[in-house]
Amino acid sequence: MSFTTLAEFRAILNDMPAPNEDARAEAEVRNGQLTKPPGALGRLEDLAIWYAGWRGVAKPALNAPQIIIFAGNHGVCAQGVSAFPPEVTEQMVMNFKHGGAAINQLAKAFDAKMDVHALELETPTADFTAAAAMSEDEVVAALMVGWNAVDAQADLLVTGEMGIGNTTSAAAIAAALFGGEASAWTGRGTGGDDAGLAIKTRVVADGLARHADLLDDPLQVLRCLGGRELAAMAGAIARARKLRIPVILDGFICSAAASVLEMTVTGALDHAVAGHVSAEGAHGMVLKNIGKEPLLALDMRLGEGSGAALAIGVLKGAIACHSGMSTFAEAGVAAG
Amino acid sequence: MSFTTLAEFRAILNDMPAPNEDARAEAEVRNGQLTKPPGALGRLEDLAIWYAGWRGVAKPALNAPQIIIFAGNHGVCAQGVSAFPPEVTEQMVMNFKHGGAAINQLAKAFDAKMDVHALELETPTADFTAAAAMSEDEVVAALMVGWNAVDAQADLLVTGEMGIGNTTSAAAIAAALFGGEASAWTGRGTGGDDAGLAIKTRVVADGLARHADLLDDPLQVLRCLGGRELAAMAGAIARARKLRIPVILDGFICSAAASVLEMTVTGALDHAVAGHVSAEGAHGMVLKNIGKEPLLALDMRLGEGSGAALAIGVLKGAIACHSGMSTFAEAGVAAG
Repeated sequence: MSFTTLAEFRAILNDMPAPNEDARAEAEVRNGQLTKPPGALGRLEDLAIWYAGWRGVAKPALNAPQIIIFAGNHGVCAQGVSAFPPEVTEQMVMNFKHGGAAINQLAKAFDAKMDVHALELETPTADFTAAAAMSEDEVVAALMVGWNAVDAQADLLVTGEMGIGNTTSAAAIAAALFGGEASAWTGRGTGGDDAGLAIKTRVVADGLARHADLLDDPLQVLRCLGGRELAAMAGAIARARKLRIPVILDGFICSAAASVLEMTVTGALDHAVAGHVSAEGAHGMVLKNIGKEPLLALDMRLGEGSGAALAIGVLKGAIACHSGMSTFAEAGVAAG
Repeated sequence: MSFTTLAEFRAILNDMPAPNEDARAEAEVRNGQLTKPPGALGRLEDLAIWYAGWRGVAKPALNAPQIIIFAGNHGVCAQGVSAFPPEVTEQMVMNFKHGGAAINQLAKAFDAKMDVHALELETPTADFTAAAAMSEDEVVAALMVGWNAVDAQADLLVTGEMGIGNTTSAAAIAAALFGGEASAWTGRGTGGDDAGLAIKTRVVADGLARHADLLDDPLQVLRCLGGRELAAMAGAIARARKLRIPVILDGFICSAAASVLEMTVTGALDHAVAGHVSAEGAHGMVLKNIGKEPLLALDMRLGEGSGAALAIGVLKGAIACHSGMSTFAEAGVAAG
């Protein structure tokens, strides 16, 4: 399975598998028999049943989470949208590879395999205020990097990103997908001040105006306003759906990239939950627009997949309870 | 170190250790040097620095969490405050011992040692609408069970409980400690209906009226309205403070028991964080009264320490990042 055009990718999105309803129903029955009052594990119960459906087994295990970090550089940085120089993208990629970043520690803490893909860092996307960020070939290539990065043996996927300037790209994508003013979707990102925010907001508005006639199509939104790491995340999340691998979404940038799929085909993110809501202002609005309730709200705003990685612990706990607990009958406990 | 009267226990609470300020300050400096924008890990940063202070080391590890479940029975059950028969307390204790409960799975998932202490289940406390729930000897004995249950080698403590009827006891304690109407603190607990809630509210009000002249003293509140498992949790949390072992508080009942300490000596819970806010209505109010912001909000209401146990994952993630990440200098990343 592969694709060489956006039209082929769109066709794949339109032909995605559903969860296994038998497994889901069986998990729901089991949930009602476990030694706890009905509903007492709250959202953990919903999570476990959702996961069972996607994995196709009523008592699933979660043993092989995969975290993939995609990195890209952004031509729009020339406009002064970030407090950091673009070189930091490459420096952080080296930090990921050497095990020194936050996401490395979280991957270890939750026994996740972690992979890093740097996408042509020496060739930033075009400045989207002047031209489309990517050609069709470029966006398809980036989608394919994500598509091919998913390990078919994984039982959970977290996608994260690194890319100086990419909150600007995410804000433009969110504004294009969901409507409203550029200012409503543009935040400070990492270390931005008032002046930086004003520049970012203007840049997002310029990008929206520049590509206005193409923005009815979410895949064109991704091409014109996105970045390689955002496209790769979208490709990986789509591939996970194809493989029925559940996904935990990370913060603003990951969620904006994922929203491209949901706005292309409603329900394309049914295999995904929101790991957290970040402190980057517009993230909560993105999640509302795609109907996702975050699992965590801890004022994180690092990216790298860090919020989603932390939520692996919640999902592990949910599945451990669901699949490991005794039923009332097994334990000889009165069901009340 | 031990105590044989409430007066002696009170004296111990008045002579508790503070965190190690040097370690705390050193951890704060280190946090500023790690390869992330300042503050980007949000509450994880505060958690790691707090933990470092209590453990007395700037780069702490979290390897040996202990979960202790205390179980007790309540004379007030004779009033019909619970939808479950008191026998379920003993049945669930057996379930804990056989590994079939939710807390067993969470303990395994987060590599925690788990201990279970059943406190004289065959001898429920007195019905607090008629008499003090416990004599001084009884409450001191229960506090001591908790005090002695803490493993001095643990580096984190979670206390949980099982006791049919104990949301009634917790509601009475919270109302006595923080004021307001019985109805403001009384919820449905596990499986209660409208009629059950009306009974519980009346029972709480009766208890408050019965012991009104003693309720200025939080330790008398615990004796008159508490239960053995609540006293044991308070004793364990106090011992953890003595040993500088950080604590994650669980839900409504655990938090009510812990509040007895904080209302006896302000700051007695400085070594504790709130693991979650439960779906039991008054829990959020208890946390506000003791100045704790919950880490998780997942609509859980099981007790057993389950919400706090799930939050072990958050704390592990926080400490892994703090102690494992590279600094900007180590990684050769520009600090912006």
